[in-house]
Amino acid sequence: MSKLNVTQKLIKEHLLKGEMEPGKEIGIKIDQALLQDATGTLVQLELEAMGLKKAQTEVAVQYVDHNLLQTDFKNADDHLFLHSAAQRFGLWYSRPGNGVSHPVHMQRFGKPGKTMVGSDSHTPAAGSLGMLAIGTGGLDVAAAIAGQPYFVKMPKVMGVKLTGKLPDWVSAKDVILEMLRRYDVKGGVGKVIEYYGDGLKHLSAMDRHVIANMGAELGATTTVFPSDEETKRFLRSQGREEDWVELKADEGCKYDFEDEIVLNELVPLIALPTSPGNVVPVREVEGKDISQVVIGSSANPGLRDFWIAGAMVEGKSVNNDVSFDINPTSRQMIQNMIDNRAFANLIKAGARFHQSGCMGCIGMGQAPASGTISLRTMPRNFPDRSGTKDDQVHLCSPETAAASALTGKITDPRDMEKLYNMKYPKFKHPDLEIINTEMLVAPPEDGTGIELKKGPNIKSLPYIEPMEEKYDVPVLLKMGDNISTDEILKAGEEVLPFRSNLPEISKYSYTVIDESFYDRAMDAKDEFGGHIVVAKDNYAQGSSREHAAIAPKYLGQVAVIANSYARIAWQNLVNFGILPLEFIDIKDYDKIEQGDIISFKNLRDDVKKRNNIKVIVKKDNGKEEEFETKHTMSDRQIEVLLKGGIINEFKDKLEKEDLKA
Amino acid sequence: MSKLNVTQKLIKEHLLKGEMEPGKEIGIKIDQALLQDATGTLVQLELEAMGLKKAQTEVAVQYVDHNLLQTDFKNADDHLFLHSAAQRFGLWYSRPGNGVSHPVHMQRFGKPGKTMVGSDSHTPAAGSLGMLAIGTGGLDVAAAIAGQPYFVKMPKVMGVKLTGKLPDWVSAKDVILEMLRRYDVKGGVGKVIEYYGDGLKHLSAMDRHVIANMGAELGATTTVFPSDEETKRFLRSQGREEDWVELKADEGCKYDFEDEIVLNELVPLIALPTSPGNVVPVREVEGKDISQVVIGSSANPGLRDFWIAGAMVEGKSVNNDVSFDINPTSRQMIQNMIDNRAFANLIKAGARFHQSGCMGCIGMGQAPASGTISLRTMPRNFPDRSGTKDDQVHLCSPETAAASALTGKITDPRDMEKLYNMKYPKFKHPDLEIINTEMLVAPPEDGTGIELKKGPNIKSLPYIEPMEEKYDVPVLLKMGDNISTDEILKAGEEVLPFRSNLPEISKYSYTVIDESFYDRAMDAKDEFGGHIVVAKDNYAQGSSREHAAIAPKYLGQVAVIANSYARIAWQNLVNFGILPLEFIDIKDYDKIEQGDIISFKNLRDDVKKRNNIKVIVKKDNGKEEEFETKHTMSDRQIEVLLKGGIINEFKDKLEKEDLKA
Repeated sequence: MSKLNVTQKLIKEHLLKGEMEPGKEIGIKIDQALLQDATGTLVQLELEAMGLKKAQTEVAVQYVDHNLLQTDFKNADDHLFLHSAAQRFGLWYSRPGNGVSHPVHMQRFGKPGKTMVGSDSHTPAAGSLGMLAIGTGGLDVAAAIAGQPYFVKMPKVMGVKLTGKLPDWVSAKDVILEMLRRYDVKGGVGKVIEYYGDGLKHLSAMDRHVIANMGAELGATTTVFPSDEETKRFLRSQGREEDWVELKADEGCKYDFEDEIVLNELVPLIALPTSPGNVVPVREVEGKDISQVVIGSSANPGLRDFWIAGAMVEGKSVNNDVSFDINPTSRQMIQNMIDNRAFANLIKAGARFHQSGCMGCIGMGQAPASGTISLRTMPRNFPDRSGTKDDQVHLCSPETAAASALTGKITDPRDMEKLYNMKYPKFKHPDLEIINTEMLVAPPEDGTGIELKKGPNIKSLPYIEPMEEKYDVPVLLKMGDNISTDEILKAGEEVLPFRSNLPEISKYSYTVIDESFYDRAMDAKDEFGGHIVVAKDNYAQGSSREHAAIAPKYLGQVAVIANSYARIAWQNLVNFGILPLEFIDIKDYDKIEQGDIISFKNLRDDVKKRNNIKVIVKKDNGKEEEFETKHTMSDRQIEVLLKGGIINEFKDKLEKEDLKA
Repeated sequence: MSKLNVTQKLIKEHLLKGEMEPGKEIGIKIDQALLQDATGTLVQLELEAMGLKKAQTEVAVQYVDHNLLQTDFKNADDHLFLHSAAQRFGLWYSRPGNGVSHPVHMQRFGKPGKTMVGSDSHTPAAGSLGMLAIGTGGLDVAAAIAGQPYFVKMPKVMGVKLTGKLPDWVSAKDVILEMLRRYDVKGGVGKVIEYYGDGLKHLSAMDRHVIANMGAELGATTTVFPSDEETKRFLRSQGREEDWVELKADEGCKYDFEDEIVLNELVPLIALPTSPGNVVPVREVEGKDISQVVIGSSANPGLRDFWIAGAMVEGKSVNNDVSFDINPTSRQMIQNMIDNRAFANLIKAGARFHQSGCMGCIGMGQAPASGTISLRTMPRNFPDRSGTKDDQVHLCSPETAAASALTGKITDPRDMEKLYNMKYPKFKHPDLEIINTEMLVAPPEDGTGIELKKGPNIKSLPYIEPMEEKYDVPVLLKMGDNISTDEILKAGEEVLPFRSNLPEISKYSYTVIDESFYDRAMDAKDEFGGHIVVAKDNYAQGSSREHAAIAPKYLGQVAVIANSYARIAWQNLVNFGILPLEFIDIKDYDKIEQGDIISFKNLRDDVKKRNNIKVIVKKDNGKEEEFETKHTMSDRQIEVLLKGGIINEFKDKLEKEDLKA
């Protein structure tokens, strides 16, 4: 492998553990970390529990862009907490309303050749600058901030050659929609998508952001672009030309998969409800009535994207039946939109401007009216994501969105020529943008003395005791197949606000299955020091949320006995100190009932030595049953589990590396 | 009364019924009507139930400024409904996000010499232009739109003479805060506040808006200013000079009360939590840490108010611990703020801009962090109104707010001179503002064919049957003293979203007292055709919400028997067809129990003839008791009640006057 593509170069440069063979686990050094507020509160609580002295990455930034509506004290309290935690642990803090994490990061911090992890699925957007940027769980991000390697399976690389030049009225969004049309939402799984070819010279760095950002919708591990003259031009426009380095694939390098897009041949595309993969040409659905158009979000965050919409509606009025919502990327973007008249053009034509943040993309405002069509330049249109159950969200380019806002119907933007006698407006990038850093707070040199500001809904993570040798604990639930994390800890409006309040969110553990679970678990914790639960196949499938492990652990869960586990949830159980046991003979499932007392006699030792683990079942009537179970943890996982989970493990590591406060 | 003040002139010009003697009921002709969305949906459903052909006022406008956050389908559905209803009934429609009703109305529709009612308590803001503008219940506004007179007790007039000129760093907000310092929140009850004197020539029409708007906080019926050269200048700046007429008090006219404010003597003032009446000089509380500053709302909506804040923070950064929230009045205001650089100055310094609307003033976003101080230019700081239970909202001028945003502490703006070496910036009104009408939709000539767009949460009001002669209905609740409307139909987040869905909101009737009420009432409706309830003194005290009458009526409530009633609720009962009976001898209260069946034999006739009304109580065991009750309704009310309520009454009237569709 002497001739490398950009992805391989980035990995090689950062490889700490393992070999670069697709499918094998590698550990890479992480240079930068990105946190947003919805996931960031837990990450910061994890850093607190680990006792980290100071962030070890070159740059780590805590953004606040998800929960900005502040209809009660919780979001505002979170903001104060995140600000204090960023100062305490040595992260930059991008204040609420400053802007959407991905474009702000690109403008202010992104550097070609660097690696990044982020607790947000659109983190790959930074690939636009020639970075290797991966979205991952909060604990992985906490680990990276604490200076630990990031472990991932070495991905295969798909090389996508771009040739030619986009036609008028067609833009970067149509490129990624074309990829989604070809590969759908699972086509990128296990792969890095790397773009190359002559066509790149007509795609600005921000255009590449559009494509890299929505690479997440392909299921790709990440998306990578080379760092070239366009990258340099972008960094210069941000006053950061010195951060540019060239990064390009070796001539003659290989890709595991190959494809090509001839840009000239693209037409305006649109993703129909309810998947970003439902892509058709706009022509196929034109003429349908719409009630809303939203321009902005991390998927179309560029100055060009707003400018083109402004230029298209200049001197016209949006249709009376369309709510024309503008979601400006950042305060810096607003300043530049004022400067290039996009802002005034949009306002004049009938736009509603909103504060800079993720807004309706994550269902935080601007939900559309029942059953009506909303056209959005956002990245996702999963069912109900907008906040409206029967929503009809379509995803498209700013050109398609602006044209449709004028007519009140889904409109191919190429029709602007005949409808409004308009030539395609040509955007000129400013040589130097107006730069706004007023809401970026730098970390102090030494933050160890800074106190965390915790409102009444923010609680430190409790210390988890190491696993004990003996237990006598009751079986609190006996479940069947395919229990989902939603059943273990439901999501939704009622529960989400407690994401930083483990004692409170724990009350929702297993409520979907049994309303009495919390009370029974608290009693069992007092009387027996814990409990176990039993299930059949595919336990804890679905969403990867970590709370579905932390919450039961908080309630004293010692172990789960199941026939099989969903992969991510199985890792989460170990990470939070719950032993995931497996039946050796599924017939033993019948020997165990809710209310039985389970004895483990020699647990630490058996786990460590990979012995089968004996389960003694004591029945209410005094009878006893007995059977054996096993576990399939790696050596590293065994060590983590015995310590009571990964936070304790990290705490020890940081102590050894003198990174603990 | 040959020499009249402005208030008396306005009333005389519009008097349809009664005499202008303070305390006596008068009926006045209404020229304009203002609706906002939170109360407007019910008003539009009432217009639908009346079957109105077309609004009879000169101008009626449906604004949408309260419920803009759209976290689910309901608000967006309401917007579509209000748009269709405005078109159907002949109202202007100010689209969501266009702006706050009161300043937009002043800029686009307000006219000296006109009368207005509005379903919003800050409607008196229009007094700034020499209008008589009164905030009132939704049914009164519906009646005015249907061409009916507005009935109110002839108020006393308090003349407040303004002399001199405001010092630097002191502005209109400090004038109304001085009034609140002197009179507190009940000092204006039953009065119209009329300002006059030489000091007026230094107060622009928008400054007067600040004072008139927050006259509501004094409890005043309304506030009135003369129409003078400043009024003309304002209308000219809006391109409406032709709408100006002079309106001034006769020399030598009298006021029922008199006071004077020497403007030169005022200092920056601030209202402490949790009442607009808790006013002290800023100096007394300076230096306290703050977490938030909000500039905007109907209480400080002027271009000057934003410009001065922008000029003060220009070239500086707001404190890192302060969320600096800007709540721009309207899209027109944003355009003018772009034009005079206020917008860029604010953004650059660290502002979060929000969509144009009422926002945090009514708890719709930007709730402050727990227990921290928020400084707002808004009109109200009642406990929990911000959305945060232990909020510490202070009310102040834009000058005090901007100075404090820079320092992070409550700061007297006069300190800008020593802290930042800054002279008080002088605002120059533009001769002609940029005008934006793109989001104002005019009513069609004939809207009778337009269909109302009703989402799944919007239900027409049901037809209420006229009162019958005989009833045999059960007593579903026996209550005690001081039952509040909150107990009859609770408020809050769970219930409010159903304000346009009577079948749904009715499920919350009396749930505070008895969870089973709804089910029992629906059964009683089926089996007996209705029910009654019994209480002691001061029934239905508290909030004046109409739903506390409509919802029980929807469940079949025929009558209430109580010892006494709260005034407004008593009117509401009659308006919605519930008979409010009173015990003649309170000992009879003991004769009646929950579950008893009550017989009325001759009800219509007895009510009409003002006979005592015989109540026959049939016990479960077959025994019977009997006693007499009375009512104290006026002749007009008797007629309304017999017809089944005021909507049926209006329906008949509109029929006669050929105003029915």
